[in-house]
This record gives sequence, C-alpha cells and structure tokens, in this order.
Amino acid sequence: MRQLPTLVIEPLVRAALLEDLGRAGDLTTDAIIAADATAEVALVSREPGVVAGLACAELAWHLVDPRITVRVEIPDGAPVVPGSVIARATGPARGLLTGERVALNFLGHLSGVATGTATIAAAIAHTRAKVADTRKTIPGLRSLQKYAVVAGGGSNHRFGLDDAVLIKDNHIAVAGGITAAVSRVREGVGHLVKIEVEVDGLDQLRELLAVGADAVLLDNMSPSLLAEAVQLVDRRMITEASGRITPVTAVPIAEAGVDLISVGWLTHSARVLDIGLDHVR
Amino acid sequence: MRQLPTLVIEPLVRAALLEDLGRAGDLTTDAIIAADATAEVALVSREPGVVAGLACAELAWHLVDPRITVRVEIPDGAPVVPGSVIARATGPARGLLTGERVALNFLGHLSGVATGTATIAAAIAHTRAKVADTRKTIPGLRSLQKYAVVAGGGSNHRFGLDDAVLIKDNHIAVAGGITAAVSRVREGVGHLVKIEVEVDGLDQLRELLAVGADAVLLDNMSPSLLAEAVQLVDRRMITEASGRITPVTAVPIAEAGVDLISVGWLTHSARVLDIGLDHVR
Amino acid sequence: MRQLPTLVIEPLVRAALLEDLGRAGDLTTDAIIAADATAEVALVSREPGVVAGLACAELAWHLVDPRITVRVEIPDGAPVVPGSVIARATGPARGLLTGERVALNFLGHLSGVATGTATIAAAIAHTRAKVADTRKTIPGLRSLQKYAVVAGGGSNHRFGLDDAVLIKDNHIAVAGGITAAVSRVREGVGHLVKIEVEVDGLDQLRELLAVGADAVLLDNMSPSLLAEAVQLVDRRMITEASGRITPVTAVPIAEAGVDLISVGWLTHSARVLDIGLDHVR
Amino acid sequence: MRQLPTLVIEPLVRAALLEDLGRAGDLTTDAIIAADATAEVALVSREPGVVAGLACAELAWHLVDPRITVRVEIPDGAPVVPGSVIARATGPARGLLTGERVALNFLGHLSGVATGTATIAAAIAHTRAKVADTRKTIPGLRSLQKYAVVAGGGSNHRFGLDDAVLIKDNHIAVAGGITAAVSRVREGVGHLVKIEVEVDGLDQLRELLAVGADAVLLDNMSPSLLAEAVQLVDRRMITEASGRITPVTAVPIAEAGVDLISVGWLTHSARVLDIGLDHVR
Amino acid sequence: MRQLPTLVIEPLVRAALLEDLGRAGDLTTDAIIAADATAEVALVSREPGVVAGLACAELAWHLVDPRITVRVEIPDGAPVVPGSVIARATGPARGLLTGERVALNFLGHLSGVATGTATIAAAIAHTRAKVADTRKTIPGLRSLQKYAVVAGGGSNHRFGLDDAVLIKDNHIAVAGGITAAVSRVREGVGHLVKIEVEVDGLDQLRELLAVGADAVLLDNMSPSLLAEAVQLVDRRMITEASGRITPVTAVPIAEAGVDLISVGWLTHSARVLDIGLDHVR
Amino acid sequence: MRQLPTLVIEPLVRAALLEDLGRAGDLTTDAIIAADATAEVALVSREPGVVAGLACAELAWHLVDPRITVRVEIPDGAPVVPGSVIARATGPARGLLTGERVALNFLGHLSGVATGTATIAAAIAHTRAKVADTRKTIPGLRSLQKYAVVAGGGSNHRFGLDDAVLIKDNHIAVAGGITAAVSRVREGVGHLVKIEVEVDGLDQLRELLAVGADAVLLDNMSPSLLAEAVQLVDRRMITEASGRITPVTAVPIAEAGVDLISVGWLTHSARVLDIGLDHVR
Repeated sequence: MRQLPTLVIEPLVRAALLEDLGRAGDLTTDAIIAADATAEVALVSREPGVVAGLACAELAWHLVDPRITVRVEIPDGAPVVPGSVIARATGPARGLLTGERVALNFLGHLSGVATGTATIAAAIAHTRAKVADTRKTIPGLRSLQKYAVVAGGGSNHRFGLDDAVLIKDNHIAVAGGITAAVSRVREGVGHLVKIEVEVDGLDQLRELLAVGADAVLLDNMSPSLLAEAVQLVDRRMITEASGRITPVTAVPIAEAGVDLISVGWLTHSARVLDIGLDHVR
Repeated sequence: MRQLPTLVIEPLVRAALLEDLGRAGDLTTDAIIAADATAEVALVSREPGVVAGLACAELAWHLVDPRITVRVEIPDGAPVVPGSVIARATGPARGLLTGERVALNFLGHLSGVATGTATIAAAIAHTRAKVADTRKTIPGLRSLQKYAVVAGGGSNHRFGLDDAVLIKDNHIAVAGGITAAVSRVREGVGHLVKIEVEVDGLDQLRELLAVGADAVLLDNMSPSLLAEAVQLVDRRMITEASGRITPVTAVPIAEAGVDLISVGWLTHSARVLDIGLDHVR
Repeated sequence: MRQLPTLVIEPLVRAALLEDLGRAGDLTTDAIIAADATAEVALVSREPGVVAGLACAELAWHLVDPRITVRVEIPDGAPVVPGSVIARATGPARGLLTGERVALNFLGHLSGVATGTATIAAAIAHTRAKVADTRKTIPGLRSLQKYAVVAGGGSNHRFGLDDAVLIKDNHIAVAGGITAAVSRVREGVGHLVKIEVEVDGLDQLRELLAVGADAVLLDNMSPSLLAEAVQLVDRRMITEASGRITPVTAVPIAEAGVDLISVGWLTHSARVLDIGLDHVR
Repeated sequence: MRQLPTLVIEPLVRAALLEDLGRAGDLTTDAIIAADATAEVALVSREPGVVAGLACAELAWHLVDPRITVRVEIPDGAPVVPGSVIARATGPARGLLTGERVALNFLGHLSGVATGTATIAAAIAHTRAKVADTRKTIPGLRSLQKYAVVAGGGSNHRFGLDDAVLIKDNHIAVAGGITAAVSRVREGVGHLVKIEVEVDGLDQLRELLAVGADAVLLDNMSPSLLAEAVQLVDRRMITEASGRITPVTAVPIAEAGVDLISVGWLTHSARVLDIGLDHVR
Repeated sequence: MRQLPTLVIEPLVRAALLEDLGRAGDLTTDAIIAADATAEVALVSREPGVVAGLACAELAWHLVDPRITVRVEIPDGAPVVPGSVIARATGPARGLLTGERVALNFLGHLSGVATGTATIAAAIAHTRAKVADTRKTIPGLRSLQKYAVVAGGGSNHRFGLDDAVLIKDNHIAVAGGITAAVSRVREGVGHLVKIEVEVDGLDQLRELLAVGADAVLLDNMSPSLLAEAVQLVDRRMITEASGRITPVTAVPIAEAGVDLISVGWLTHSARVLDIGLDHVR
Repeated sequence: MRQLPTLVIEPLVRAALLEDLGRAGDLTTDAIIAADATAEVALVSREPGVVAGLACAELAWHLVDPRITVRVEIPDGAPVVPGSVIARATGPARGLLTGERVALNFLGHLSGVATGTATIAAAIAHTRAKVADTRKTIPGLRSLQKYAVVAGGGSNHRFGLDDAVLIKDNHIAVAGGITAAVSRVREGVGHLVKIEVEVDGLDQLRELLAVGADAVLLDNMSPSLLAEAVQLVDRRMITEASGRITPVTAVPIAEAGVDLISVGWLTHSARVLDIGLDHVR
C-alpha cells in the first residue's frame, strides 16, 4: 500500500504537538508524575471500523520522547471491533500522558475517514464503481485524509489544482463551450496530465465525446440519467458521478454503472472513530 | 466577540493554499481563463446554520490575489437559511476560481462546527448549562475550531496542556489520590492557572471538595448521579459533565444542573455546513 | 519541576546556532582542528548563582554533532559557587568548539535569570510573598525565561494575552469602570480562565471587591498603602504588588503582606551568570 | 547609519507576537474594547538614554493591525531625557493595546543596549579606543543587538563564526603554536576574511607579529601590560582588549592605547531602558 | 500561459534575499547611499535569448523595499536581442542596489533555462516532437525551472514522484517484468494518474503494448531504433525519447518521429542568460 | 577542509525531497516494491571530474529512511574518472529508489561546480592567481556552491552583502569619488570587515592607492592593462580581476599577475557532472 512519507507528516505532527504544549508544556503531568516513572498504554477501539494513521500516533509520541516505543498490533487498513488492541506504547509515563491526546486526535480522525470510506465501499461492492475522494478536505490535512481514504478501500481523485485538469462549468462558460475549453487546456499541459471534464447533461456529454478527454464527471445526475450517460460513453472514457453523495444515496448511483463515485462527505464530514487509551501499567 | 488574529490564521491559510496549488498552480484556470478577466462570486448557504470562518475565506482569496475584495453580508456568529448570501467576492476571475476551494473548505468546516455547537446550545437553552469544547480537535486547527465554537454560542475549555490544569484518573492513580495530586499541582503552578479535577463518583467528589479546586469534571455519570453531584458541590466549584455527549444525550445531562457540558463531538466529528459558490458575473 | 519540552526549545536553539554559523560555518575551527580530534570540556561557574538552561546547552552541542555527550553534574535549579563544575561535554573537538558560544549564551542568560530570581526570593523568604515574573520578557525567549524564573524559585504570571485576563487602567477607562469591565470579560471567556484586575487605589479596590475577581494587581502603591489594601482584601482574592520593583525595593513591599510581587527586572534586565568553559583534555 | 532590513527583523517580530498572542489572542482587549474604537498612544522615555529598535516597535503594531500608523519623533541613535516622546502611534484601539507589550519589549531592550554602549563610549571618548560588541549575545537577537550597539555609538565585532577568523587559546594549543595556527587558516579562507588572534602575553604577541595578522586580541591583560603591548605592536595590526570589561574597568583599559575594547556586558547583561506608553486619547 | 503563483515563489525569493543580506544587510550601500536617494535602473539583455522569471525579480525588489516599482517591457516567454530593455525599476536607491544581485540571479538563471529550451525547440521545429524537461532539476527550484521551460516553448514532464507514474528498469526488474509492474501500479493509483513505462528495446516495447499504458519512454535508443519503435507503437501511446540528449543530438532523435524528447540538460546544465543592470539615473 | 554544517544543509535537502515527494510520495515505488525489500546501489561517475556534495546525497537518503547507510569511497574534493565508484548506499529498496533523484541532483550539480572550478584552477596553476567565486549564484544554494568551489580548488569571495564591503561603480558615482566612498565606509563598518573597491582604469586605481583598501577589483581590463595595474599596486593590496571570465579567457588574465580571478561562470552556468546510480543487488 501507499506509504505516508515521514517527511510529509512530521511538520503536521510537530505543529499539532506545539499547539497542545503551548508555551509551558503539560503543567498537570509535570507537576504530578515523576520524571523517571514508566508506563505502558494500549490504544483500544471502542467501536467497529478501519484503522488509519498509526504512523502519526507513533511519531507524536516519538517527538515528545524518543524513548517511547510503539508496537503495532493492527496495521492501517485493517478492521477493528470493539475491544481490539490497535497498538501498545511503552516508555516514560510523562511522555505517554503528554502525547496521548495528539496521538489520539490523529488516529481517531484518520480512522474515521477510513471507516466512512469502507462503509460506502462495502455498500457498493456489488457494482463496478469505486468510491473516490475530492478536494473538499480539512485544510492542512489533505495528504493524510487521502491516505486514509486509500486505507479504507477508496481511490484518490486529484490531490490539487496542479496534478490533473478538471474543467468545470465556470471554465466552460468562460471558454465558450467544452470544445474550446478542452483544446485550450491541451495546448498548455504536459503529456502526463489527465484531463477530466464536468458535464451537466447528455448534450454536453456528446460534445465532450466528440472532442475527447480522459474522464467525465457526471454532476448531480439522477441514477437513470447516469445509466444513459454510461451507455453513451461506452467505456471511451472513465465515468465519475458526483454531487452531495452520502452513504444513503451512494448505492443507486453506483448501480447506474459508473466507474467512480466521488464523495466529499468522506473528508469534509468525517466522524471520529472512537479509540480510547487504556493504561496497562 | 473574540477576534481571530490574522497572525494566527495566516500560516494555516497559506499552508492550505500551497497544499492545493502544489508545484504548478491551477492548471485548468490558467489555461482557460484570460489573465485580465474579472468576475463576482457569492458565497451562498444551501442549508440553515451559523457562519464562522469568514476571515479565513477572505484571507485565502487575498493571498491568491491581493486585488480581490470581499464584502461580508452575514458575519461570523450569525444564522443563515438556505439561499442566504454570506459574502460577495470581486476581482480577477483567475484568482477567484483558484482560491475558491480553500475558501470554501475553511468556511464550510468552521461553519459546521459553529452550527453543531448552536444546535446543542439551543437544545439546552432552558438549562443553566453552557456547551463547551474539548482538546479533541482536528490537528492543526484548534484555534480555529475553538473560535467557531464561540461563534456558535459555546464556551471554550482549556486550549492546551499549558493554560490550565486538568487532573485525570491516571494522574490521580499515580499520585495516590486526589488530595496528593491537587497539592502537588498547587506548588508547581502560577496564581493565574485554574485547577480542574476529574472524578468518577461521589466519594472522589467528596475528597475533592475537602481539598478544593476551581472546577470538577464529572465523567461519564448518569443524569441522576450528576444531579446528586451538583447538589453536593453546592456551587463551591464549577461543575462540568463530560463523556461521549451527543446532541441526543445532551439535554438530560444539562438538565441535571451542571454549569457546563463538554462535547468532543463539536470538533472531532463536525459535519460540513453546505455553502456553495455562485458565479454572479 | 516543570520540564521544558524539547519541541519548544529546539527551534530556538537551532536558530541561535544558524545565527552563529552563518553561511560558511566555523572558519577558524575547520581550518585548524582535525576532523577526528576529540576533547572534553567542563562548564564551570565563575561566581555564585543558580543554574538554568542545561537542556539548551546540551541540545546546542547535540545539534552541531550528535556524537557529543553531555553529563550534567549540577541540574537546573541547583546552586553553584565559583569553581562548581556544572556539566562535562565529550566528543569531537570541532563540534565542541563550534557549539561552545551558543551553549554558553543560553546557559549564562537563563542562569542569570534564575540567579536574579533566587536573590529576590531569598530576600523575601521571611514574608508570605512569592516573586513572580511578567510579560516584560526578551522577545522570543518567554518560555525559556519563565522556566528559568521557576528554576530560581519564582512563580509564573500569565504566559501571554490568551491564558488569563488582566484588566488594566486603559481597559477600565474605556469600559467606564471596573464593574463594567469585569462583567464584559466574564461573558466572553471560558471557565478555566482566571481574571485579575489592576487597581490604583483603595476606591477602585472596593469596587473590585464588590464585583469579584480571582486576583488584584496593586500597582505602584507604597508599602503602607499596600498593607491597607491587603487588609481590605482579607484573602478574598490573590493580592499582587507591582511597579518597577528591584531587589532593593522588594523587601518592604513583600513585608506589606501581599501574596505576590511581580518583577519585570527578572527578565528584562537580567545580568548574565558568568559561566566559563574549561578544556579538560 | 546601517539599516536593519525588514526581511531580517520580521520573523523575529512575528515570533514575539505569536508568543504573546498564543492560541486565542488578547482575551482582555477583545472582551472590553469595541472593534471600531480608535486611540492614540505615545512612547515616552522615563529615564535618560539612547533610542534603538523603533523599526521593531513599528512593525509589531503594523503586523497586529496594518491600519496603525507610527510617527517617529526621536530616531534610533538619538538621546532621550525623562519625558521625551519617542514616537506616537494612532489607529484601532484594540490593535494598539494588543501590540503594546511586544513593541515595548523590543524598544526597551534595544534602547537598553544602545544606552549601555553610549555610557561606555562617553567614558572613553578621550581615548583612541572604540567600544565593540562580542558574540556573547542573547540567542536569536544577535542582528538586533549588534544594530543597537552601533546606534549607541559602538562598533561591531564579527557577527558569527563565518565572517572573520578569531584564533583562540584552544586553537593555538591544538595547532601547536601561533605560527602553525595562522598559516593553516591562511590556506583555508578567502581574501576578504580578516584574521584576528588572541594572545595572553608579550611572548605570544611577538610570535604573532612575526607571522602577521589583521588584529590581535589582548586577553585579560592589565592596563600596564596592555600599554606595553600597544607599543610593541606599533600600529602594525589593530589592537583589541577584552576580558570581563565593565563600565567601571573600561576607562583605564581604553587609556592604555588600544584601538578597541570589546565588552560582552553590552549585550549579555543589558538593562532595559524604561520606556512607557501613555494613552493620549 | 501558466502563471507562477506568488505563494510558491515568495519563500524562494525571501530565502535568496536572506542568503545575501546575512545578519547585517548591505554594508556598502548603507554606508554610502543616502536613505532618501532615488534612482531608476534598467534590466538590459547583453545577448539574444528568451526571458523568464520577471515575477521573481520584481518580488525581490518589492520585498527589499515595497516602494520600488517595476515596469515590464518584455514579458516572460518573449525574445530579446542584445540591448533589449526587459524592465525598468524605480524607487529608493538603497533598495535598488541591495536587491539587484538577487533579482539578476533569478532572472539570469531562469532566462537561461528558457533560452536553452527555445534553442532546442527551434532546432526540432520541423518535426512533430516537443522538447520536455525532467526531474533532473536544481534542488529547490523545480517549480521555477519547469515554468521557465514552458516560457521557452517546452513541455513539462511530471513535477515529482507523486503526480504521475514512471516505471523504470529497476521497478521492472523487481516486479519480474513489465506486465506485473503495470498491473501492480494500476491497482494502486487513482484514475487521474497517468502511467508511463521505460523500455530499452523492442521486445519490452511489445510486452508493454500488450498490457497498455499512457506513454512509453524509449531510453537511450539510436534514431533508427527509435523510428522502428514509433512505427510499432502506431500512436497507441505517447512516445518519448530520452538519454543524455543535447542540442547537438536532439535533431536526429526528434526526426525519428517521437512525440517528445526529454532533456535533463535544460535544467541541470543551464547556462545563465547575460542580463545586466544599467543605472539610468 | 571546510565543513558544511548539517544544520545549514538540512533545510535545503528537506525542501528538495518535499519538492519531489509532493503530497502523495513515490507512487511508482510504493506500488511495485515490497516494503521489506533491500538493495545496494553505487554512485558511479560517468566522466572525469571532482566530487562535491556527498553530505547532501547521504542526508537525502537518510531523511527518506534513516536505515539507509552510505559508505563514501571517494570524498569531496577528490578526482574521479569514468567508472569511479564514489559511494555505496545500502538499505530498504523503497527508500533507495525514492531518494535517488534528489541525492543525484545535489551531487551532480555540486560536483559540476567543483569540476568547473578545478578545470580553471589547473589551467592557471602556473600563475600566482587563484580562481574565486562571486555572488552570481543559484538562488538558495550559495553556501553549497561556495563549498563546492573550495572542493574544486578555488577560493571564496564574500558570501553576501554583509561580510565584506565591495564598493562598485554606482557607489562611487553617488559618493562623488573613490576617496569619499572609502572614507564613508571606514566610519561605518567594524574592524573585521575588509574593504574592496572596483576600479575601471589606472586613474581610479591611483586614487584608490592613495586612500588605501584591502583589495582592488580590476573590472573588465585587458591582460596588458591588468599587468600595468598589478605593477602599479606593487603588492600594497590584493588584486582581483573580473568580468565575464570563462575557462578560455582565464589564462591570459591570470598570467597578468593578479592574485585572484573571480568567475561568475563557476556558479551561474555550471554544467552537471554526469554521475549515475548502478543497482548492485
């Protein structure tokens, strides 16, 4: 599976720790816990779901105190049930307590994203569609959230404005039509940049099929219209459905035959996965 | 109302923009939209809620192109209904399109936090309790989320490990009891640091009342036990209830008479507020 | 004792080293000392005082060359006399020489702060007053200086504008009185934020006692007026005296019976503690 | 006079403001002062001295609120007496209050450095010696402190380890003598790097005169020995005296005829210049 | 044409200025030029070429002194001859002199990249091939160099390891063949990621044609072998030739009929374009 | 030899890696190579030259995966021939492949600078002149490029605007002559700052000799005029020739007897040294 480079996550974990430590550090723990006390804690799931973000939790503790070691029991991408021990951390008690909240905040949020993704993926498993993310992500966490989507069995849409072209309604309006918009883009971008175009109906779709593209985004269409569009495309380009899709509406849309359903809900409205920290000793 | 200092939000907005622009910027817009085209867009709510985060949206556009101006129609903390125009932005069309997603990601998320807070605040308005946040925040966004909680009518718990003391079960266990833990803390912290202690039952509460503190966190207690605790405290310290509180469970807990209910759900599981961007011209 | 998190001090130590290394590093040492030479040095106090900042000195050497090891003989908070060996560092001679000045600059300054604090603390040890710091700190070093104050036996005032409320004369003037100012603040801040109010005379103090607060700052009062104020307060709030207090003026002020004397001199005018570096081999 | 580039001071001012604003900003001011209130304040000296650091104070307020304007009355390098109005700032009252402490912390500290420098410069004005700074600076503030030394009439020693060579006793010991040390350095450094060598007696000085250098640092010598050394050098190189020089010991040392006396006290033990902020309206 | 977002270039320009200003700024200019002197300078080409990087030059001066204004005469992407005035800058003389070297370093280097690209583009203009860049860029300047390649009439290859897949010989060796490598990649990457595969001969090319990909990189092949490969591909995928291509060897390779020739020389060995700065007044 | 401090190069290597990894890391390698595969690679020169930058290559791999170890066979400053194994790296195969390009980009560029320097140094070895660099460097890489110049046998000119004075034609024009310019500078700078002055003819040189300076920059003079100038100076100051010197024009200029020839070409137009990476196992 895709790795999250330490170089990418370290600034985020460091910022989250500094946000929590503030200017004076953990007043409570430093006052109460002896500097040489050690402990062991376990990260335990309180509900079913899919794990993601263990590297962040591990790095959080490591940055607080490099003597803390983490042993992963259930890796990113694997399912948990209530009571599953995801990982165990051992080391100085002060560091374990001080880093606990940041470790859990990353792990709970990213596992929540993975779990939401897995829920939709399971619901549409009988179709040919994959569930994909969007750019509707929490500011600052896009790399992490998109990693969690993959951990949950989903697929990544573009990561930003620069790694793929997505021509939307406003672009088309300004350019004066799909044909003009696509041809302007083709001149300007490199040979490894894919081009996707948003269409809002079958007429626009026919114009797009004539000019060609790598993928079409079928926006806010009913399942029956989607089915018609898929037939019209006839595998000449990748078909993607989008538009306020939720776990509830995903199934009929996926059953329309599209290749992908893209779902902002995965990342902009993710619920935390309830993971607790038990003190073993 | 509390302001969000530009100095605090700018690094976050800048990072979110760089995350979206990547190494090559907005390929689609640069290829299709003329550099001298101008436009006006409106931020329009698609559902009822409370606004928060306009300063982030405004700054996002301003950092992309300082010639973009934003006129706020409905300020942070105010309610919206479907169709409400929250703000209008005018300026170079390229910049408006390039900054749109980041502006919306901040505004939608923070308005979602404010809206969730307002929902619980309204539900418990007939009680003496206020709804408060926790440290269970999205990594990197704590200042912003806690600002949104205030915009939604909630109250802030401590911002980090360093601005207040919260003695939890593990601290008490290591210290050998509430009395020892509180006295160790009192020696170590300054005169402007408040001390709150978590108790899990009435026995611990009685021990705490004897030694004294600024606030007590009544963890995972039933409404009836909470009511008993509140009576026992008799306004000698601030009473706070916590423990997986949701909009559903909030009301009976608040009715137990506590001063505060603290709710991780406000920030760790916030749903986006659906705000769209309409192109006016 | 309170710890200084490595995460907090590392950016400061790194910046100090880069400030000294510039663009080309240590020209003198690189030209003269062989890359494989090793050495041992000792940090030796040249005068009596209290140590603070060893973690910074150790980190400075560690960042220059991770092979350097530091053995602490006299920890932060402990007293030294002329000739006391505070710590020994061993490792590559180049790194020891290159990091020496930055290590000493941190250690000398912070030990100076601790020593100044200890001097006042000793002078007022017969009173009930503790000596506290202020926000009159050297820009960029607030966390470190406030840590050094604790190491010297002092107490920390608030760390910034956001972790406690301090209502000053200008706030009172704009609000139209103490009562109005306090009540506006109470609405706006969370339950873990303490409120202190500055008063310049007994009339203001009486108004404050009526409305209530956590602490009162008695500004620029004579010892006899302070004694009257303390009697008036009668332990209903914490009493703090301030206003250009120096080691000379501290004693009569402390003897007036206040809980705290806050002293900008501790941090804005700290004299270095003279610590030298002896080359052992 | 030498300018302090905004690019160099901005990160320091920004860091100092963030250190003070923390995560929630100025709780007191935001709660009490209306967002549209304006005010004018004056920076007034409470004691005689020399001003330095106005650019930092101005930038501090500008970064808090760009609408604040500052009018300088007495520029950096100029003398003040008690009551002198150094500058006036006008604009939103919230910003003026929020930025006040950081503005004063920079201005007070740097004016303190300039004042201390001016004191020694005046005391030795009848000699040929100039007073110079050292690398014994407050971590992070070297550029600013060295600028303040110039504002106070002093001269700058090297800024770091990379802009000039200073061969010290340990370098000489390892190299096996002054001649070897100087010749190793000459091979390794560029033609625009000056070389200074520390000597502890006349024998070493004679060896140095034979091999040649740009400057000699006469370390910890008595005034009479210094006078002998100066005569021996006979203007063939720049002569600098150093070693725990204070305002008290500076005069006889300077009268020995050296070109420079370098004084760590200027920067490592600077007393604040007492500058207050008066609210004009 | 593609824009370079200010957000992307500002950190680079700021770092370059700080690298030049060091700790004390422009000693020479500050000592000699009066603070209120103004001047006008012209950026003049000393040789034929293509301009790129004016936004960096403009930003360099703007960051040194925001009062400096730059008027562009010949924009990025346009040709110059000896004597062409590319732009004029007006404002404070100190700032113009202080920012000059950094402005020229950016402009000269990027114009050099654009000019080298234009040279090859002109040489192969009679073929169907476009000239493209690689990831063999100067560390830290990839975005800028790739922008300059486009300004010179070239095309961009992928920007990094994450925006397109390029399967190389080592990947194929480890995977056990092209078919296995391509299928593993297809499972793992999103629908907007293109896949290119490097082949070293016609056998590998046939295997690749069977499994399919978006593009093929024909590595180190002779022009005649390239022609054969192009015929074999028959426009079923994009064909790219690579392997130590220089302006000399580019023509026969382009004439072999490939879609693209990718040339590390454009960025890893770019010669500066000689642009001087004339002082107008 | 001069060391490159890790503290100085780490931010540059980190930035170069993040530039290459982008938001998703190495898609190709993560999809194809197993996480537990290990490998060994060798950095092999494909052409003759001089090595520089191994610390950057090593750090690049180390930051990608700290388990990678690098064994240097031919250190910085040493010559290579085609086929020379410069270093070997061993460790996780993913990390080796992911870090390869950044490691090579640093090593190839800096070895190119060292090789170009060595070429000129060899060509003028029969003269008394040394080859020196300039401030015409690639933005962001000045420290590294100047280090590579030393590795190639060259000498460093000043590193920035702040570590030496260089009075140029524009400064002289504004000051109203060389004498005025030099005397203004002498007042303003410290005793360890050298002063060099650019002259464009013998008249200016005579004026300079009268006022004195540490070095003279003889700009754009013919070899015969240079010889005259050198004779006129008669070793009273360091003589430096400059002005579009290339490997071709360097010899006659050096033979004119100057102490230094400074060559922008070393850094602004460096060709890469062709170093490849062979997979050993």
